[in-house]
Amino acid sequence: MPEYILNLLPLKEGEAEEFEAIAPAAVHVYARSSTVTPEQLASATVIFGWPRPETMRQAVCLKWFQSMWAGTDDYTGKLPEGILFTSSSGSNSRSVSEHMLASLLALCRRLPTYRDSQRAHIWNDEGPMRTLLDATILVVGAGNIGSAFAGLCQGLGAWTIGLKRTVHGPVEGFDQVYPLDALDSLLPKADVVALTLPHSPQTAGLMDRSRIALMKDDAILISAGRGSVLDQEALAQAMTGGKLWGAALDVTDPEPLPPDSPLWDVPNLLLTPHVAGGMRLEITRRRCVEMAQENLRRYLAGEPLVNLVQ
Amino acid sequence: MPEYILNLLPLKEGEAEEFEAIAPAAVHVYARSSTVTPEQLASATVIFGWPRPETMRQAVCLKWFQSMWAGTDDYTGKLPEGILFTSSSGSNSRSVSEHMLASLLALCRRLPTYRDSQRAHIWNDEGPMRTLLDATILVVGAGNIGSAFAGLCQGLGAWTIGLKRTVHGPVEGFDQVYPLDALDSLLPKADVVALTLPHSPQTAGLMDRSRIALMKDDAILISAGRGSVLDQEALAQAMTGGKLWGAALDVTDPEPLPPDSPLWDVPNLLLTPHVAGGMRLEITRRRCVEMAQENLRRYLAGEPLVNLVQ
Repeated sequence: MPEYILNLLPLKEGEAEEFEAIAPAAVHVYARSSTVTPEQLASATVIFGWPRPETMRQAVCLKWFQSMWAGTDDYTGKLPEGILFTSSSGSNSRSVSEHMLASLLALCRRLPTYRDSQRAHIWNDEGPMRTLLDATILVVGAGNIGSAFAGLCQGLGAWTIGLKRTVHGPVEGFDQVYPLDALDSLLPKADVVALTLPHSPQTAGLMDRSRIALMKDDAILISAGRGSVLDQEALAQAMTGGKLWGAALDVTDPEPLPPDSPLWDVPNLLLTPHVAGGMRLEITRRRCVEMAQENLRRYLAGEPLVNLVQ
Repeated sequence: MPEYILNLLPLKEGEAEEFEAIAPAAVHVYARSSTVTPEQLASATVIFGWPRPETMRQAVCLKWFQSMWAGTDDYTGKLPEGILFTSSSGSNSRSVSEHMLASLLALCRRLPTYRDSQRAHIWNDEGPMRTLLDATILVVGAGNIGSAFAGLCQGLGAWTIGLKRTVHGPVEGFDQVYPLDALDSLLPKADVVALTLPHSPQTAGLMDRSRIALMKDDAILISAGRGSVLDQEALAQAMTGGKLWGAALDVTDPEPLPPDSPLWDVPNLLLTPHVAGGMRLEITRRRCVEMAQENLRRYLAGEPLVNLVQ
């Protein structure tokens, strides 16, 4: 039986042919998550893209699923037993890291406040600003995104420290890398703390009230992994009391953030609606396609897959 | 007669002693622009800082004046005849270039729009974004600030082209440098156009209606030199008609921008009230002090001064 490849990636002209050249013997079926049929799901031996998690049990012939996102928590406990599950971790690193840098610099230069003044037609000098030159940036989660963000900050003259579960040696973009349990001793030294952790039972609530209190009074917090990592209520309270220079959150818990959440109005807090990654840059989309193609080549050759989750 | 040095710089502890060690035979008088007396102005042979331009004629003994700003147009035609006039050009390059980069990235990631949504408690995805990776950035004015900005952009993976009046060779931060008269041929190729020109009869109105029209429909405009360089009315009209991805203006003409100016409300235009430079970063202040000290040493030794304007 030939492989039945259900390809739900947002392909551009010529890219279907690229997949077909890699797997000429396979059946290639192209669809979108919104239009995929139960028959297609039931026939698929390979799926690329972003099918609705609750439909995945219908994929009774599935052997391998590659998600088009870096994060995989949407599919936890929802996939058929025994399949190979790979992510597109790394595909959106440039987009997310650039969004984090944009948010960080915006806070340094008080752009949210200046935007508010602009809307009110007010020309008002808000005083001192911050620079990334010689700033100490602590990245909690030295994975693909953390590493890319640190690299951008290094390029602007910052000193970068990365934290990860297990340290095996240097990580690109970081001047120093420590195990995650060094967090409490490093928080008081950081000018910027950036959270780039995935959701997991171990990371949920990691940045809690006591750890926020350990930060410098004029530090900046950036949150871009998963909202569950941060105690939002504690952050809102601390910042309302004058703690921190500012914070930028691209992720919240829950999402969307309810309209009556106090987070919306916390002073010097910049909120964006989980838009750092996704398919907002062409380079992210193309990288996803290339990652699927590389893994397809490996799959057919019996080689180990990249970004294996399970 | 000893030199009478009227020092209006915002000094910190120990810095007065640094000046006195360089010129032990001089009379050192410290004041602020707001508190300086007519007697002090009349006695000064050297002035450092930012005295009110209209008071400069009172400085009848003045031989040398070093302004604490990079721009010098405030003093045009207002200084006593025959004095040496030096600027602090370069002192705020890091601050201004970081502000320009912050504004540029904010536009790439649609942060002004997301800020507006945040204020309205709206969680709404605004779609595609832009990246600086492989973007072509045209910097009109390859001086200290333009060069610093280009260097930051290069570090983020952009291709940088600088324009200056006379080209004598490579300029740091730029992949290419051309004379200013290449402007019209390069505008259609740029993803980002950054204006970092001082005010002068030659630069006033340089970025006019026809040149704005030469830009790509989805290009980004950054203005951080002097407001007079840009035809604001033409820009507002073009952008209201859908031209450009966005624009960020830190300088306008006049300043402050009148509350009824149409500029405030142009879609995708970010306005900041001439705050890119100034003394908003400690590194700017310290660099100003060091520049005054270096020139004081040169002045006493009879060596040529740095940043000589006239």
